Amino acid sequence: MASPEIEALTQALARLPGLGPRSARRAVLHLLKKRETAMAPLLRALEKVNERLSVCGVCGNVDTTDPCTICRDPRRDARLLCVVEEVSDLWALDRSRLFPGSFHVLGGRLSALEGIRPEDLSIDKLINRVAKGGIDEIVLAMNATLEGQTTAHYLAERLESYPVRITQLAHGLPVGGELDYLDEGTLAQALRARRPVA
Amino acid sequence: MASPEIEALTQALARLPGLGPRSARRAVLHLLKKRETAMAPLLRALEKVNERLSVCGVCGNVDTTDPCTICRDPRRDARLLCVVEEVSDLWALDRSRLFPGSFHVLGGRLSALEGIRPEDLSIDKLINRVAKGGIDEIVLAMNATLEGQTTAHYLAERLESYPVRITQLAHGLPVGGELDYLDEGTLAQALRARRPVA
Repeated sequence: MASPEIEALTQALARLPGLGPRSARRAVLHLLKKRETAMAPLLRALEKVNERLSVCGVCGNVDTTDPCTICRDPRRDARLLCVVEEVSDLWALDRSRLFPGSFHVLGGRLSALEGIRPEDLSIDKLINRVAKGGIDEIVLAMNATLEGQTTAHYLAERLESYPVRITQLAHGLPVGGELDYLDEGTLAQALRARRPVA
Repeated sequence: MASPEIEALTQALARLPGLGPRSARRAVLHLLKKRETAMAPLLRALEKVNERLSVCGVCGNVDTTDPCTICRDPRRDARLLCVVEEVSDLWALDRSRLFPGSFHVLGGRLSALEGIRPEDLSIDKLINRVAKGGIDEIVLAMNATLEGQTTAHYLAERLESYPVRITQLAHGLPVGGELDYLDEGTLAQALRARRPVA
């Protein structure tokens, strides 16, 4: 058996999403063999992130600065605000480089089942941001799930008294999606939202 | 974009075997969200391993102690020595719990192509261990590759003057292997090493 320290490292890595016990062991072996080129950079990066990790007081993103890198970016369009459920959604949209505005992370979605109510999400903070003015459009980018859509409807109601345009992501066929393999819900959305051929 | 620190962490994780850029990103997000339960234990484990990491002066295993946990284990049969190419092979055999003896890691295999000669491997150290006496059997557990087998033959020659039994792992059908799908090399080995039905 390996030493308790190596076992602990293997177990800490195995708990990461996408890694299991087997791949964690391979990763540990790699770290042990490449101490200077793999272990040291990983350790330094983890230390730095752990030291500086903070939740952005403006949008709720996690980053090493507060306000976060996105909120501090002057090239971002502050008049355009995209509301997402989770930090992972923010990252996914940011990665696509398709959205030039700023973000707001709710920290979840309304859920009767899990007992998550409006006051459990960062909704008051969102309302405050909107109330301050300077925002023209709010894109509700919730997941296309029942709970995501419930949350979007709730937000739309809460926001309707403010002079902002409220939009949501289009629903329909995913790119490359074949009708034959799509669920009926998606088909229904795609049909309902059909557009004239350009 | 995320901050440079988070990018650095993502890249350090993405270089681990079994992780790519996408799963590294998911792993980082997991670490950021679960600071106390995921980030902190991983950081502590990495720090400890990095601090204590050493190559075992006896067998060549990597561990946090020298001699390594296996070499210090009094329940191990010191009269039985298993020679492997890499630390990963040692771990694989140790994991199986089928081998009660000690190990010796060569640190590679002889390879004309890669210019790896006997003096590049931990062979003199192996000979010294054997020369000291106290070993009854040496199991040559090289990979079933051309280079692994060349290495095994070379070692067998170097060791033949010592009063030890030299064995090697059996070659043949892997458990669950279907004849129809096996390569000819394996079939030839299985046929050559055929045994009377018990």
